[in-house]
Amino acid sequence: MAEYKAPLRDMRFVLNEVFKASELWASMPRLADVVDAETADAILEEGAKLTARELAPLNRSGDEEGAHWDNGDVTTPAGFKKAFATYAEGGWVGLSGNPKYGGLGMPKMLSAQFEEMMYSANNSFTLYPTLTTGACMALNAHASQEICETYLPNMYAGVWSGSMCLTESHSGTDLGLIHTKAEPQNDGSYRVTGTKIFITAGEHDLTENIIHLVLAKLPNAPKGPRGISLFLVPKRLVNEDGSLGESNDVSCGSIEHKMGIRASATCVMNFDHALGYLIGEVNKGLTAMFTMMNYERLSIGIQGLGCSEMSYQNALEYAKERTQGRAATGATQPDKAADPILEHPDIRRMLLNIKATTEAGRAFSTYVAKQLDLAKFSDNADEKASADALSALLTPLAKAFFTDVGLENCIQGQQIFGGHGYICESGQEQLVRDVRIAQIYEGTNGIQALDLLGRKTVANGGKFFTAFAREVKGFVESNNTKTMAEFVTPLSKALGNLERVTFWVINKAANHPNEIGAASVEYLHVFGYTAYAYMFALMAKTAQDQLTAGTEEESFYLGKLSTARYFYKRLLPRIHSLTEIVISGADPLFELSNDQF
Amino acid sequence: MAEYKAPLRDMRFVLNEVFKASELWASMPRLADVVDAETADAILEEGAKLTARELAPLNRSGDEEGAHWDNGDVTTPAGFKKAFATYAEGGWVGLSGNPKYGGLGMPKMLSAQFEEMMYSANNSFTLYPTLTTGACMALNAHASQEICETYLPNMYAGVWSGSMCLTESHSGTDLGLIHTKAEPQNDGSYRVTGTKIFITAGEHDLTENIIHLVLAKLPNAPKGPRGISLFLVPKRLVNEDGSLGESNDVSCGSIEHKMGIRASATCVMNFDHALGYLIGEVNKGLTAMFTMMNYERLSIGIQGLGCSEMSYQNALEYAKERTQGRAATGATQPDKAADPILEHPDIRRMLLNIKATTEAGRAFSTYVAKQLDLAKFSDNADEKASADALSALLTPLAKAFFTDVGLENCIQGQQIFGGHGYICESGQEQLVRDVRIAQIYEGTNGIQALDLLGRKTVANGGKFFTAFAREVKGFVESNNTKTMAEFVTPLSKALGNLERVTFWVINKAANHPNEIGAASVEYLHVFGYTAYAYMFALMAKTAQDQLTAGTEEESFYLGKLSTARYFYKRLLPRIHSLTEIVISGADPLFELSNDQF
Repeated sequence: MAEYKAPLRDMRFVLNEVFKASELWASMPRLADVVDAETADAILEEGAKLTARELAPLNRSGDEEGAHWDNGDVTTPAGFKKAFATYAEGGWVGLSGNPKYGGLGMPKMLSAQFEEMMYSANNSFTLYPTLTTGACMALNAHASQEICETYLPNMYAGVWSGSMCLTESHSGTDLGLIHTKAEPQNDGSYRVTGTKIFITAGEHDLTENIIHLVLAKLPNAPKGPRGISLFLVPKRLVNEDGSLGESNDVSCGSIEHKMGIRASATCVMNFDHALGYLIGEVNKGLTAMFTMMNYERLSIGIQGLGCSEMSYQNALEYAKERTQGRAATGATQPDKAADPILEHPDIRRMLLNIKATTEAGRAFSTYVAKQLDLAKFSDNADEKASADALSALLTPLAKAFFTDVGLENCIQGQQIFGGHGYICESGQEQLVRDVRIAQIYEGTNGIQALDLLGRKTVANGGKFFTAFAREVKGFVESNNTKTMAEFVTPLSKALGNLERVTFWVINKAANHPNEIGAASVEYLHVFGYTAYAYMFALMAKTAQDQLTAGTEEESFYLGKLSTARYFYKRLLPRIHSLTEIVISGADPLFELSNDQF
Repeated sequence: MAEYKAPLRDMRFVLNEVFKASELWASMPRLADVVDAETADAILEEGAKLTARELAPLNRSGDEEGAHWDNGDVTTPAGFKKAFATYAEGGWVGLSGNPKYGGLGMPKMLSAQFEEMMYSANNSFTLYPTLTTGACMALNAHASQEICETYLPNMYAGVWSGSMCLTESHSGTDLGLIHTKAEPQNDGSYRVTGTKIFITAGEHDLTENIIHLVLAKLPNAPKGPRGISLFLVPKRLVNEDGSLGESNDVSCGSIEHKMGIRASATCVMNFDHALGYLIGEVNKGLTAMFTMMNYERLSIGIQGLGCSEMSYQNALEYAKERTQGRAATGATQPDKAADPILEHPDIRRMLLNIKATTEAGRAFSTYVAKQLDLAKFSDNADEKASADALSALLTPLAKAFFTDVGLENCIQGQQIFGGHGYICESGQEQLVRDVRIAQIYEGTNGIQALDLLGRKTVANGGKFFTAFAREVKGFVESNNTKTMAEFVTPLSKALGNLERVTFWVINKAANHPNEIGAASVEYLHVFGYTAYAYMFALMAKTAQDQLTAGTEEESFYLGKLSTARYFYKRLLPRIHSLTEIVISGADPLFELSNDQF
């Protein structure tokens, strides 16, 4: 495996030059004092060092060793404990946490870039703090001040960690079916009983306590999703003075044997009259979960992006070193027995597919993070409303599209290695196994697509979508210049296509409820490539401006323009077939009866 | 994992009804006495039993245990030895072998369907006899009668096995670079020295001898691919009376740790002045290898097909059992807490994608096998020439397209399982890991695409392609009826598109050598979907004829028509984007300089 190097130059390009983050932060009082360009840059520099030095070296050994389960105790692979301590001491768990309870209060635009580094370096490791971040977010938004004060400082400090206990063996996508029960006690607490599966970081040896957020049903709760409440169930109880008390009735029954992310403990968690505390309102547990969902979903999407970047670095190194055959236009190193495979068009095609979608993905993750930051920090009501709409619309897109493209990118990187990519030694096959989970967990990509097209588009008659389309049109109109024509003309066409297909589904779905599900995955991909076209137009504009102004980094900006052109010519055309498939409608899916399958 | 059941009904439909195999066999003197409809059917029945009872049960345990290496000895996982003995005793190794040396002489049309069963049941197991079949084919075509008599009967009987030793660590695709040397001895034999890697079944405990076919260079051989000769190097020498003699200087240095096919030993093989015998002519080793290449490549393609079928069976069983959520048009089992996920359009989409491409693939593998049989057995010179051209053209297509689609199908099957698909227990993640190798070995799919478009199309000015196009046009013209219009009209359009893009590349490549490599992979996919459209038109015609004639299996034939419609509506449109990408040409791939990557 190539040694991971965080793509700092490209991250800075996106953050500072394309989205002018520091100007944005300065405009929002709640961020102005917390972060500026210099702070952000220092954090990215430190993050790059940490991920390269502490996390990447444990990636393959962690996969080979895996997490261990022994009679309820879970041990992480060698080195994880020390690395987690370094990570926690650096304050990284609380990077975007609430400063009131010891978090650093950093914007998502910055933490999203750090998350990309984390996933590039070590998927399994990253899941431990990521789950804690998610749990903290839910507590910060819905728990009482007392609970926040008791739990958040230790969680932000990485002394305690968190888990999210949703799934049961018969109930995944359809959480309304869960069986776990919570019985109210006289002192206002609850006793939680049930078994949860697929609990990432449900048990491990990295922290002295684990704070489980558990979905359960109260006695006589309404059936289905409206009868679910959220409970905080600590592994070890916390005394009034904040010190650790006795163990709670929570145990880890086993860990799963999985295709990948083997150093991440995926636990079966048994709650046996465990002491728990209600978080948020009774029967509104799912709402409490959804508060943090957009943040979390973007992070899991970024797993796909981080893996894409690592795939690129790994495959590029190999494509430059490996010699085989000759360039079609004549030997490029005639003194040697063969040319580097980078000379072959099909190898370039795969590398450029990865490069282009990773750069567009990085821009898009920062763009979506910007919406999340505006929604959270802006004091301007209109700006906040628009950002709320855009982040609601675009997070399921980012989660599913980054990870679908992420798998394709890891597979393409593996193909560049030929037979060597199938061998564990190259590190590339682990990337394929690790990235695959990101299309499945945190809501499968099929569910993300239904969320994007059903809840976020059809349900509001395309209101959120129109907000996005308006922004893109504004950009096209104000950049309708000769030099930008090669980018904005196809962008404008792609947007027109996306608008037509969006309203085609909205109209069709009014009388045909199956049309949403029949269209959703292909629709999401049409949207994804169109959004990437917008990102490349934004980046091309920035690059052109820098070149016009004069720069010592001409090659970087010219490379960006070439990559943009590659995207428009060889990736954006994918939307045409996808659109045609959407428009073919739901009927072909239901012509076969169930027993004809 | 669902219990594997060979899709006998569909195999018979393809073999007997669509391609009328027994009529074809009866027309060829060398096959007429060997096989008829009844024999073929009995073989498929027995094959179905064998694969379901002996091979499928060892699939997961074989993956978990893996092959073992200990100081040069390789042990296969528990049960493999017994299953291989049963397999060998049944005569399956020699199924398509030369009857002169104890083979059964069966046509590829039949053995291809049996191979599909094998790969569905157990990828790793199947590789042991498959490599033997390949080695036998090369010997049968190029070795002296003495060698054939010495080796083939034991190999067909499964008492000895074979391996193909091509790759070296620095030389895979570009075999001209190999270092392995063969020194001529006074008695006409050779001493072979070198190290080969990625040798499937290079060492194991299934047979008492292993016959290695090794590519090596004679002293002063010309540089590059024209200086390669082929040698037979047995693990144990064979005495004049045919009994086993002493060990040869061949050893297994280690086995690889791989993403999948873990029960298949992938060996590093060391030859240290090992005794070997020249096969075929000096410096024509690659030609000798290519003799069997089309047969072997189709078989490896069929690995993708077999995995697709298993993915379908596994995912369909889950989709019928797993209940989650409600059908969009109202509950289908209101008395239960949820409906089967088979009711959800996106689940049907994934299942139908797998089903349609698997059925088309099965037809296409049988169609390509038919060409291989005609090329081998026909006494009609014109028929033979046309079959030679079609099999040369279509085998790289089948190898790459079946396996590219095979990965997609295994991934889609895994997605249907949700989180359960990521856990080893479901068996589905193993399928994903196992099928992945088929896109890489036996020539990567990128190399197959270059072969299809470069050597088999551009190099002959589209002559082979035109033979294929003529056949499809003939079918379209003779079925230009009202009932067939929904199939032949889009088929005709797709063929027209394929013709245009084929000749676009041929013209463009005349002056731009990079255009072939830039177009090849997407071109192969355009061709693949178009070929599948032809298969579905053939199958639809057969189904319509049966329905018109009256049948008790109405549901089967109607289901075939519905699946055909699904293919035309939701899969064939993929060709449009792919075509557009081909036509974008090679320039976007070379705009970035190597250091801008």
